[in-house]
Amino acid sequence: MGRRVVIVGGVAAGMSAATRLRRLDEEASITVLEAGDHVSFANCGLPYHVGDVIPDRGALLRDAGQIAERFRLDVRRGHEVVALDRDARTVRVRSADGETDEPYDVLVLASGAAASPLPTDGSVPTHTLRTVEDMDAIRAAVDGGVRRAVVVGGGYIGLEATENLVRRGVEVSLVIRGDQVLRTLDAEMAAPVHEHLVAHGVALRFGAAAERVDAGHVVLDDGERLLADLVVDGTGVRPASSLAERSGLDIGPTGGIAVDARHRTSDPAILAAGDDAEKQDAIGGEPALVALAGLANRHGRAVADVIAEAPAATDAPPALGTAIVQVFGLAVATLGWTEARLREAGRAIRVVHTHPIDHAAYYPGAEQMTVKLMIDAEDDRLLGAQIVGRAGVDKRIDVLATAIAGGITASRLSQLELAYAPQFGSAKDPVNLAGYVAENLALGQAAAVQWHELPGLLADGWTLVDVRSPGEFARGAIPGAVNLPLDELRARHGELPADRVVVHCQVGQRGFTAARLLGQLGHDVANLDGGYRTWRDGEATRRQETDAEAAEQQG
Amino acid sequence: MGRRVVIVGGVAAGMSAATRLRRLDEEASITVLEAGDHVSFANCGLPYHVGDVIPDRGALLRDAGQIAERFRLDVRRGHEVVALDRDARTVRVRSADGETDEPYDVLVLASGAAASPLPTDGSVPTHTLRTVEDMDAIRAAVDGGVRRAVVVGGGYIGLEATENLVRRGVEVSLVIRGDQVLRTLDAEMAAPVHEHLVAHGVALRFGAAAERVDAGHVVLDDGERLLADLVVDGTGVRPASSLAERSGLDIGPTGGIAVDARHRTSDPAILAAGDDAEKQDAIGGEPALVALAGLANRHGRAVADVIAEAPAATDAPPALGTAIVQVFGLAVATLGWTEARLREAGRAIRVVHTHPIDHAAYYPGAEQMTVKLMIDAEDDRLLGAQIVGRAGVDKRIDVLATAIAGGITASRLSQLELAYAPQFGSAKDPVNLAGYVAENLALGQAAAVQWHELPGLLADGWTLVDVRSPGEFARGAIPGAVNLPLDELRARHGELPADRVVVHCQVGQRGFTAARLLGQLGHDVANLDGGYRTWRDGEATRRQETDAEAAEQQG
Repeated sequence: MGRRVVIVGGVAAGMSAATRLRRLDEEASITVLEAGDHVSFANCGLPYHVGDVIPDRGALLRDAGQIAERFRLDVRRGHEVVALDRDARTVRVRSADGETDEPYDVLVLASGAAASPLPTDGSVPTHTLRTVEDMDAIRAAVDGGVRRAVVVGGGYIGLEATENLVRRGVEVSLVIRGDQVLRTLDAEMAAPVHEHLVAHGVALRFGAAAERVDAGHVVLDDGERLLADLVVDGTGVRPASSLAERSGLDIGPTGGIAVDARHRTSDPAILAAGDDAEKQDAIGGEPALVALAGLANRHGRAVADVIAEAPAATDAPPALGTAIVQVFGLAVATLGWTEARLREAGRAIRVVHTHPIDHAAYYPGAEQMTVKLMIDAEDDRLLGAQIVGRAGVDKRIDVLATAIAGGITASRLSQLELAYAPQFGSAKDPVNLAGYVAENLALGQAAAVQWHELPGLLADGWTLVDVRSPGEFARGAIPGAVNLPLDELRARHGELPADRVVVHCQVGQRGFTAARLLGQLGHDVANLDGGYRTWRDGEATRRQETDAEAAEQQG
Repeated sequence: MGRRVVIVGGVAAGMSAATRLRRLDEEASITVLEAGDHVSFANCGLPYHVGDVIPDRGALLRDAGQIAERFRLDVRRGHEVVALDRDARTVRVRSADGETDEPYDVLVLASGAAASPLPTDGSVPTHTLRTVEDMDAIRAAVDGGVRRAVVVGGGYIGLEATENLVRRGVEVSLVIRGDQVLRTLDAEMAAPVHEHLVAHGVALRFGAAAERVDAGHVVLDDGERLLADLVVDGTGVRPASSLAERSGLDIGPTGGIAVDARHRTSDPAILAAGDDAEKQDAIGGEPALVALAGLANRHGRAVADVIAEAPAATDAPPALGTAIVQVFGLAVATLGWTEARLREAGRAIRVVHTHPIDHAAYYPGAEQMTVKLMIDAEDDRLLGAQIVGRAGVDKRIDVLATAIAGGITASRLSQLELAYAPQFGSAKDPVNLAGYVAENLALGQAAAVQWHELPGLLADGWTLVDVRSPGEFARGAIPGAVNLPLDELRARHGELPADRVVVHCQVGQRGFTAARLLGQLGHDVANLDGGYRTWRDGEATRRQETDAEAAEQQG
């Protein structure tokens, strides 16, 4: 008889641990206790069944009986663990049949995250979107003829719920506590996402939190009441660590279960993985909550290696938080820290914005994306990346995540030998191009200023030169800029002052050429990073903030 | 007055060198001598204008005048360099106006590759597909009503020409010297490409070389004559190094111009980059020809850094040869060495085949791909990769190329933190999965055998167990296999011998679970790498070889 391994939670981390453990250890007794009705279901697919992108509900579910048989697991659904006695090494399990105590030699906590439901008077269906039951209820409401929904929270679930409700013809208001969606984006990178949501008919309500549901309305903390037939709450998720906390296990500063790099809690007989456990942050080194399915699955599997003392058991690398979400065809991918967070932490950084196309311009279907890199000014390490676009975004964020894992500096991205054919990229891939820009900055080939630094420079009397064509200039320009097209710069540079000159183009590339030229012609010059596009996106956020302040002052 | 820099060749490497050099050095005199009529044209796009995928011919061309003005370049088209006097530091240039001698302080050789045209009696239009003129002539022929074309050569150009001619309704016979397309693939990886070509109506003619065009036919070296209204020759490309050779520059063992890691030839005043110059092979370290647009562009740019003694000048990393081609929607991507080449070189390797889907199975549009990794058995380094599939292939080859550049071992691919949402991947990405398989092999978690080793094992009396379902077994099985479904294995393993057992499933994953189970139950067992799918693809090639041999014996 092998060891008794009890796993609390049967979705991502829990079931990965269970199946891997069986492959490593045919002798162990493995029990999986899942509070819900479904194990190993596709939680990332739930919003898409609501939107009928995935019409077949069964595609999201797995046959618990078959998994149990194949891997000889004791899988118990509808079994909630309500208490943990670490001295006796038992868990108290509550099910429809009452309560029992289950002994363990090794316990795995993989309970995921918990949501605090929005208080409601029951006048309107109000749900989170985390379980199969949530999904069924929301879909049933939509099938029943919901006209107006309020979605609370601009994170992944909020955005995916919004998209799928709109797909079903529902009018959606999206309530966002701060001034932007997705905290993993900087403001100017969130702006095109806002624009895209609005273009798809979504009403964005910034700077407000939902307090409760009352008489068919969502009541916001500023007093406003939004009419709704359905409320989807994507906020308030926290690690489901209360059982661990009650039994005296160490809880980290984030509220997640504290674990070491081998997923061991403060009790040697107990491991934890998935959204209930802390990760180590790859950029700052501190404990962090990173609620991502990939980490949950991989860490769950790694737990089995640790339990079995398998040779594959190694320390988990710190978490970068690489993530992607698609909304109305626009992909948003991020990793590491934002510029805002790095500056707040006082880190010396360089920032690069580029706007490359995903594949050769001459081949049909090319789409422009925006790439932002945050780079350590001292050692040229990548500290963060953000990419927004319609195509090729997932590829570039994965290349950047791999580059970080391999210790490839920002400048060396220029040398990566990526696969090129006109359908898939460019001879100099967007990642190579961002690397060149980073290298030019690192080596002082051109000074750069960020969009948010421009107002200060203009106030200080700097000259802003727009090197785009007169046609581009006429279609929209930065206030205060003078237009001096790149191809006339060599002849007309005498019209410009010798120093305190900022040049810009549409996306940054002609601006770099202009900055190099003016620099060689004796001017002290900087290029506006990311060009007009990044400035415009940044200003969109700034205008929105100003509007919000104005509204507040009026209100 | 700055240095006189003369650049021979104005397409990828040459024009990258010229424009970068101007950004670094406003003083230099920069002359670009291009033998053809077009500079900086999109040579990778040529086949797609033939196929009308890119209807606008102008999209492939660049305005030489504008480039010349913006970067103050002396760009001369229709100027062929016919001689090089290294002592006098002059090149002799032939143009419509006669011959002149151009002096240089620094010379850049970027002439690309040359093709040996197929001898022809002129009865049928016969072209390579390397220049705008080639493209125009082929398109004119197709517009004029070509019915049957013969394409010679199963490399990138041959495949792209084939696809685009078929798109225009032309019947295509593809003549391939060896027994497969794309020398960068192993046989079993080429098999699905062959199947795909045949499914799109392409007639494949293996094991024959085209000798000449005669009286409306392509004559093969085995005497066969293929009727054709049009012949496209994608073979016989070699570095355009004859000028360098005639002037006594060192030519490497490959026939390319010998250069160091900073693109310097044996003459300190002369640099070379692009398809005329050798690269250093990343796997073996030896000189190699790697004719890829990405390297040409990046090395051309790097040449400028070297000339300008810019701080960005660094040694070029050795070339992996990362490449991709799409044919009828199937993408084929490769890097590094093939299994065949590694085995021939006596390298100790591990090989992994997987057949993952590009994104979550439950989300619409998921496509299966085949991933093959070649891994150094001693240090777990990746030595090669091949991926074939309809979606997500470009992303995974780029992640692998980046992993190699970053020194990430095959086993550690399992830990890469790649972006996951159901549209883009799986919680365990195909790259992670391949890493797990590699790690299991590296740590001895399961022995594996390759498809080409199976006949030998069966001849030696090994037992082959197919652990798929009876339904899968009935739809096609490996001769000699017994069917014992995975979910019955625990109960029925007593039916199997204690040793010399090979298990297999459809793609390798259930086979691994079966191998782990049988191993723990006391059997000596190996898993057939890549499962039935890889075996079937390998056998397809083997059958084709046998057919070819049979034909030869009859003929």
